[in-house]
Amino acid sequence: MKPKELKIVPLGGLGQVGRNMMVIGYQDQYIIIDCGVQFPDNSLIGVDYIIPDMQFLQGKEDKILGVLLTHGHEDHIGGLPHLFDVIEKVPVYATALTAGMAEVKLARAGKLARTKIYIKNAGEEWDLGVFHIESFHMTHSIPDSVGFAITTPAGLIVHSGDYKFDQTPIDNWPSDFAKLAELGKRGVLALMSDSTNAERPGSTPSERGIDKAFEEVFANAKGRVIISSFASLISRLQQVTTIARRHRRKICIVGTSMVDNVNLATKLGYIDIPQDSLVSLEEALHLPDRDVLILCTGSQGEPTSILGRLSTGKYSAFSIKKGDTVVFSSHPIPGNEENISGTINRLYRMGANVIYHSVLSVHVSGHACQEEMKMLLNLVRPKYFIPVHGELRHLHQHAKIGMMMGIPEHNISIVENGQTVIFRNGKMRLGEQVPASVVLVDGANVGDVDRDVLRQRERLAEGGIVMLTLLLDKSTGTLAKEPRIQQNGVMTDYEMGAIQEDLKKLVIERFNKVKATNKNNLEKDLEQNIRKYFFNSIRRSPWVQVATIAI
Amino acid sequence: MKPKELKIVPLGGLGQVGRNMMVIGYQDQYIIIDCGVQFPDNSLIGVDYIIPDMQFLQGKEDKILGVLLTHGHEDHIGGLPHLFDVIEKVPVYATALTAGMAEVKLARAGKLARTKIYIKNAGEEWDLGVFHIESFHMTHSIPDSVGFAITTPAGLIVHSGDYKFDQTPIDNWPSDFAKLAELGKRGVLALMSDSTNAERPGSTPSERGIDKAFEEVFANAKGRVIISSFASLISRLQQVTTIARRHRRKICIVGTSMVDNVNLATKLGYIDIPQDSLVSLEEALHLPDRDVLILCTGSQGEPTSILGRLSTGKYSAFSIKKGDTVVFSSHPIPGNEENISGTINRLYRMGANVIYHSVLSVHVSGHACQEEMKMLLNLVRPKYFIPVHGELRHLHQHAKIGMMMGIPEHNISIVENGQTVIFRNGKMRLGEQVPASVVLVDGANVGDVDRDVLRQRERLAEGGIVMLTLLLDKSTGTLAKEPRIQQNGVMTDYEMGAIQEDLKKLVIERFNKVKATNKNNLEKDLEQNIRKYFFNSIRRSPWVQVATIAI
Repeated sequence: MKPKELKIVPLGGLGQVGRNMMVIGYQDQYIIIDCGVQFPDNSLIGVDYIIPDMQFLQGKEDKILGVLLTHGHEDHIGGLPHLFDVIEKVPVYATALTAGMAEVKLARAGKLARTKIYIKNAGEEWDLGVFHIESFHMTHSIPDSVGFAITTPAGLIVHSGDYKFDQTPIDNWPSDFAKLAELGKRGVLALMSDSTNAERPGSTPSERGIDKAFEEVFANAKGRVIISSFASLISRLQQVTTIARRHRRKICIVGTSMVDNVNLATKLGYIDIPQDSLVSLEEALHLPDRDVLILCTGSQGEPTSILGRLSTGKYSAFSIKKGDTVVFSSHPIPGNEENISGTINRLYRMGANVIYHSVLSVHVSGHACQEEMKMLLNLVRPKYFIPVHGELRHLHQHAKIGMMMGIPEHNISIVENGQTVIFRNGKMRLGEQVPASVVLVDGANVGDVDRDVLRQRERLAEGGIVMLTLLLDKSTGTLAKEPRIQQNGVMTDYEMGAIQEDLKKLVIERFNKVKATNKNNLEKDLEQNIRKYFFNSIRRSPWVQVATIAI
Repeated sequence: MKPKELKIVPLGGLGQVGRNMMVIGYQDQYIIIDCGVQFPDNSLIGVDYIIPDMQFLQGKEDKILGVLLTHGHEDHIGGLPHLFDVIEKVPVYATALTAGMAEVKLARAGKLARTKIYIKNAGEEWDLGVFHIESFHMTHSIPDSVGFAITTPAGLIVHSGDYKFDQTPIDNWPSDFAKLAELGKRGVLALMSDSTNAERPGSTPSERGIDKAFEEVFANAKGRVIISSFASLISRLQQVTTIARRHRRKICIVGTSMVDNVNLATKLGYIDIPQDSLVSLEEALHLPDRDVLILCTGSQGEPTSILGRLSTGKYSAFSIKKGDTVVFSSHPIPGNEENISGTINRLYRMGANVIYHSVLSVHVSGHACQEEMKMLLNLVRPKYFIPVHGELRHLHQHAKIGMMMGIPEHNISIVENGQTVIFRNGKMRLGEQVPASVVLVDGANVGDVDRDVLRQRERLAEGGIVMLTLLLDKSTGTLAKEPRIQQNGVMTDYEMGAIQEDLKKLVIERFNKVKATNKNNLEKDLEQNIRKYFFNSIRRSPWVQVATIAI
């Protein structure tokens, strides 16, 4: 008989604790909350995205009762297709919009047949094995977001999902405060909640608060208005299209991801843009500039996005011109600052007026700040507290807020991914560390890029590569041909030409010293000495790769 | 006879207009303001730093009357040694501390004999050819900073240098407001001023304002206090050592650059740390933890800095332990956010309490915010305005502030590096564009890394490299040996092993099709087809380099 204990296991990407995935288990029954991807920082060169390490789920396939999704952002649903590389079949539970987005994602990956998606809207409750699930509405930067209250044999645990307490959301549907208070009254064993903005004092402003900024943008714009934001920020799209219509502008949405999301949200009733105010890009380009709003992606300065390509003149459909007003309706995600800045500068150079968060309040965060975190803790009044969804630095700040709200330090667990937290007899303790390294996805193959490969890429990026091909005559033990030296990324070909002879002399000198008795020794010696040559002459250390071939 | 016009030419690194260097010329007489380096952003892989393109100075050697330095930061003096690659000899004019720092820099580069450094303190004035120079004190994040008023035959121009209006600076020496007002009264043709914080409303807080935060740090610290900041932030070092002494802590300064700067500043009287409060690192490690303050560099999360190495356990002299309080007394320089965040997280993991700008006000900017910019414009009341020291986005915001202060839009020039601004008969116009591309320095060689080399490095970093060596038998036109395939940074060797045979088959197939009639064609065909193989099978595009050798 397995011990009567509840296990909570945060999983997910690098640094961000439990944001992309969390597993909750009691004896032999498990549920999963979210299954997302993480986008890599600048140190993970060439990596497309990161998926949670799912080793912990292997061998438990028949014990996993379901996946609960909190909302439709990539970092919470983007990993679903990969889940089915580990698990043959598992049902998914989500609100209507989230379910719609998950369905699209799984269908594209050809994995839709592996699951059944149950729509469970905010306010619904249902049983999953020993667990009783209650879904409650929380405001966030995508509609139809929820948190979960999960009654387990060990007690009631609450998961906030990504949230903020927007008192005047665009869809007029605030967080379910009554439910949170009721849970608090019922008695909550443990709260896991979003730590993203734990370093920010005060409250996150309401989405409604940025209406004023957009009114100003439209009032002052003399030409076209081009607004870029996240494709999933449905409420922002509602907001700016409503204001644009008031200013008698037609709306043109460019880019597949944004069009797809608007179509889905329209179908499900989460956004309302009258059909007669929408125009195609071709129509938009033939209207007077003052009558046009163009919505597109690229607010993070991604070079391949529409705005990114507009800023480099590489978008074929149209170009930025003097008089355009371009709005970045987003905050920079850490790591994107340089790309965004470059895009802003290029748009200015093209004659556009550029508006972004540091000059006008055209964006607010989707995550709670310190006062909202305090409010949540006061409503839910948990016995134990596990700050999640953040880096270690954010969890530490969130823990300090928990202590300020009266939770004793030893009732707070700051854990990293893979660190199991166990509840037994109403007490919390740390359990085993389960595998939670990261799985890097580059292109279509999963897992064939590891830390060593990344280190190699980093070294190649730092100094380029020198390639030396050497032909040995097996019978005489001499060089059969002049060494061939190629390079990439070390220096200009002109400069390389100037040292070719030096390098060849060095190679022949080393060859005569070491001889080809041992091919490995020779290759190693040449690699070392060529590297030394570059370091001594120009203080640089390119990668050196030698191929000796005996004939 | 050359036209009677004044030329202003901003030069310098990427994006930042005129920060690293500016040239002012009248007929055949030129002066240079500042000569600094720029540190590269993440897109310039492997580049150590960037120096201004000095082509414009070539051929003018005997016409350059002197270099004026505003202050001792690297981005204003770091390029001096490279200046003497272009100019044989030129005198330098600077305040005592700046002169001391420039002297150290030139002496290390073996170029001190090429110049004479004249100490001209704030308030002094002197002639340089047709120019009359007045140096005036401005507060900034390094002592002894100045701006310049330059009387030219075309009129009076004012250069702010890097500045903020700190009303209560640590050294009790505020900016010379009286001088600025007097210049305004005299009539200023053009102002060039610092745009760094043009996006920030309000005023930059005084250095003195962060005393409170440090008092709190020392009052709450139960173990060692480790404060990291910039080595040149002399006033910060004064500030924290004064507070540390009040809390009866001994002070240990670690790291050459910080020790050098403190020694120089002590010698010149810009900092006062009583000798008996200083201890060596060895002594510090033997004192009770509560009695120690350690000062070091690394506040930007640089992996090779002392704090960077402490966070990875790679600093040999001592280690971080539970109870340590580590303070980042700096703001992240854009591009460093990820490194800093990683360092903070690692220090937390080691048990330290970590304090940084987002949780406590332990740093203030050294640059003026919008209200100070307005104040400067109101004092100087220039006819023309050239916002400098910033990216295009900052210049545009600064220009808007200028307009708000009553300067007509057509009296403001937003220019980029190399764009000459000309004054003639009291009127401003744009002149020629002079060469102002960037010079990238990687290691000891200057200028042998260009955009193409960087693009190669970027591609290597994105996908690694596959190297194919092919031996052709000249007489038969067949392959003399099995192809040799090597790789770096593409995938793990294990995964590569699995596709070796596929690749060899592909190579032989292509070889049989194309034959070796034309070596170039063959190499190109193989490169394309191997790349295609990787893209089709795993959606990845490594660099492919083929070396065919005929024997």
